[in-house]
Amino acid sequence: MRNLGERAKAASQVLATTSTDDKNETLLTTADCLVAATKEILDANLTDIARAQASDTAETVIDRLRLDDARVEAMAEGLRKLVQLPDPVGTITESWTRPNGLEIQKIQVPLGVVAIIYENRPNVTSDAFGLCLKSGNAALLRGSSAAIDSNIAIADALREGIAKVGLPEDILVLVTDTSHQAAIEFMQLREQIDCLIPRGGPSLINSILENATVPYVIDGDGNCHVYVDSAADLGLATSVVVNAKMQRPSVCNAAESLVVHSDVAERFLPQIAQALDGVELVGDDRAQAVVSSIAPATKDDWSAEYLDLKMSVRVVENLDDAIEHVNTHSTGHSEAIITDNQAAAQEFINRVDAAAVLVNTSTRFVDGEEFGFGAEIGISTQKLHARGPMGVEQLTTTKYIVNGQGQTRG
Amino acid sequence: MRNLGERAKAASQVLATTSTDDKNETLLTTADCLVAATKEILDANLTDIARAQASDTAETVIDRLRLDDARVEAMAEGLRKLVQLPDPVGTITESWTRPNGLEIQKIQVPLGVVAIIYENRPNVTSDAFGLCLKSGNAALLRGSSAAIDSNIAIADALREGIAKVGLPEDILVLVTDTSHQAAIEFMQLREQIDCLIPRGGPSLINSILENATVPYVIDGDGNCHVYVDSAADLGLATSVVVNAKMQRPSVCNAAESLVVHSDVAERFLPQIAQALDGVELVGDDRAQAVVSSIAPATKDDWSAEYLDLKMSVRVVENLDDAIEHVNTHSTGHSEAIITDNQAAAQEFINRVDAAAVLVNTSTRFVDGEEFGFGAEIGISTQKLHARGPMGVEQLTTTKYIVNGQGQTRG
Repeated sequence: MRNLGERAKAASQVLATTSTDDKNETLLTTADCLVAATKEILDANLTDIARAQASDTAETVIDRLRLDDARVEAMAEGLRKLVQLPDPVGTITESWTRPNGLEIQKIQVPLGVVAIIYENRPNVTSDAFGLCLKSGNAALLRGSSAAIDSNIAIADALREGIAKVGLPEDILVLVTDTSHQAAIEFMQLREQIDCLIPRGGPSLINSILENATVPYVIDGDGNCHVYVDSAADLGLATSVVVNAKMQRPSVCNAAESLVVHSDVAERFLPQIAQALDGVELVGDDRAQAVVSSIAPATKDDWSAEYLDLKMSVRVVENLDDAIEHVNTHSTGHSEAIITDNQAAAQEFINRVDAAAVLVNTSTRFVDGEEFGFGAEIGISTQKLHARGPMGVEQLTTTKYIVNGQGQTRG
Repeated sequence: MRNLGERAKAASQVLATTSTDDKNETLLTTADCLVAATKEILDANLTDIARAQASDTAETVIDRLRLDDARVEAMAEGLRKLVQLPDPVGTITESWTRPNGLEIQKIQVPLGVVAIIYENRPNVTSDAFGLCLKSGNAALLRGSSAAIDSNIAIADALREGIAKVGLPEDILVLVTDTSHQAAIEFMQLREQIDCLIPRGGPSLINSILENATVPYVIDGDGNCHVYVDSAADLGLATSVVVNAKMQRPSVCNAAESLVVHSDVAERFLPQIAQALDGVELVGDDRAQAVVSSIAPATKDDWSAEYLDLKMSVRVVENLDDAIEHVNTHSTGHSEAIITDNQAAAQEFINRVDAAAVLVNTSTRFVDGEEFGFGAEIGISTQKLHARGPMGVEQLTTTKYIVNGQGQTRG
């Protein structure tokens, strides 16, 4: 494991001073190599799928694993699109001169080796590599055992493309030992890994918290709320809540909880319950009193990230109670208020503690693509380093350059 | 322990929306309360010192523990100076409008609860509190058992000042249980602590790596190098090396290792050996061949942070070898090159991986005060969140505000 880390680290040192043109050429060439290797990739994918089926894996899980021509082409297109993004490396973000004549610059530099540990979805192998390359980082990847054959085939194609352009192949290193022990060793490569980003569920996150000694950024759960204020446009509220809950329920920026001001509960709840057709609703006593089809919510419901067609409903007395409810149960991802009252909106913005606070729009917009970052490696729910959608910008760090003329400290 | 964390967290929510004026008034009032409590603080300090002496603590350690009128006044002055610093909270760092009309802003907000775990030096209690307050964060502090009486007296004075102005006293919470078990629990207050900054030696850092589940920023060792290039002004090199090594050897930005280009080794080494009067030099064969008083370096010397009047000396064939030596042994803190060759300086800047790279000046300048940040909570040697000196700016995070007019995602 250490050897794999050392290889990525050595390659990262070359990549840190590679020109934007060379990185972009590598993106295009690796995209072509992916498409050219479609047959090998799909054959490998069939092996993964056959193994999953033999072990009675759920069909939804197999679906996330499955590749076809279009999905391989989409991976290649994802790499090509990164060419258009500005290269963050080398940007001088601040510069100033001290009274003693020292000139100080703060410049953006790559992190070095970015490690990603992820479950299923073999496209992450290509997507993560592309974002790392554009930001000048070597990618040290560790996918799941379920997707191992697909991941190897994809990594082989990408490494072929890297070598064609002349960069070190080890700017992409795939860890093929998918044992639990290997995952632990991976999280402890402190000399080699500059940033670890886990992409997976609570058990992976817990394992990181317990075992990792490398710096990491947590891409955590989203228990996202939409609060419908007393001054809300209820038509707008209905379309936003339906979008936030139903447009793609399985993702972290989908809404899981609806909070409604008591002044509008009687008018709004029947209308939204009807609009959320097919969504199982659970709620508190007051919500149930208005809409009889709402089932009782348990204590766990308020903290649940369902990732499914289910939603909890809470009726609150006022804005303060809404904010307290949100801050108590929020995972710090994305929280929305629907209101025409600017003071209420501002209060919600100021006091709700989350990566993104939205006014009169859907939580589903909290996403690297929708924010205009071009692509994202994940959505950080922690406050250090990066908070919210992480694009190439968030895969850099800074370095101070201090230019002197012999100054010494007195 | 959890209860202490909850108290700090509740107070942090009030502080997050406290005005700059109220924070500044609190800084001034707590400064006055510190000075007014000088007698109580010095009495408590005598208790700590008597306990340390009774257990045969080294005099240098006792010296770090010791307070007097001037040191209490210096703590108060540190708080007052923070009033002048700009308040980072609320600054809009970026804003843009998406094609669908969504207006996105990225604003600076406090982290929430900043936890500091520190050894000795009771002034950290006041300094850390001040920086946290200015940046809108509650401070959850855990000092050492050696300084516990001093820390309690200082915290009492500060909390009295906080209450006078009307902020919640719990924006400063001092953990008084100094047991090892309490330290572990402290590092695992994941629901309460937004950022942990350890200030201490390798054993504290290792305990953090092993036990912490909260996000943290490592303020690590400084094995800082000065590389004297073939194109160096040797007079300038001498004064910079002497300053970097001798001006204050016990701190992390002092130089520990001298790397010399072979072309100038015969001229430079005798001159620097004489100038580093009182410094024990250990070196490789080539350095010893030029200056007979240089003792042989062991393998460990190249990685050592002496924090003392000792320095390792390496002679290298060229710039490449110098960069490789530095990158192999660097702790990523501060690395300097002395040269009049701009191309060599640029190559060193580009390829040396450290928080700060300096040209023709002393590593001692890598410091919050010297950078103009007003004060610092530490110097980060990691790449995530903050790298290099950390001032009030680095004690903030960001929040995205998304303003819409009913947009939904298609």
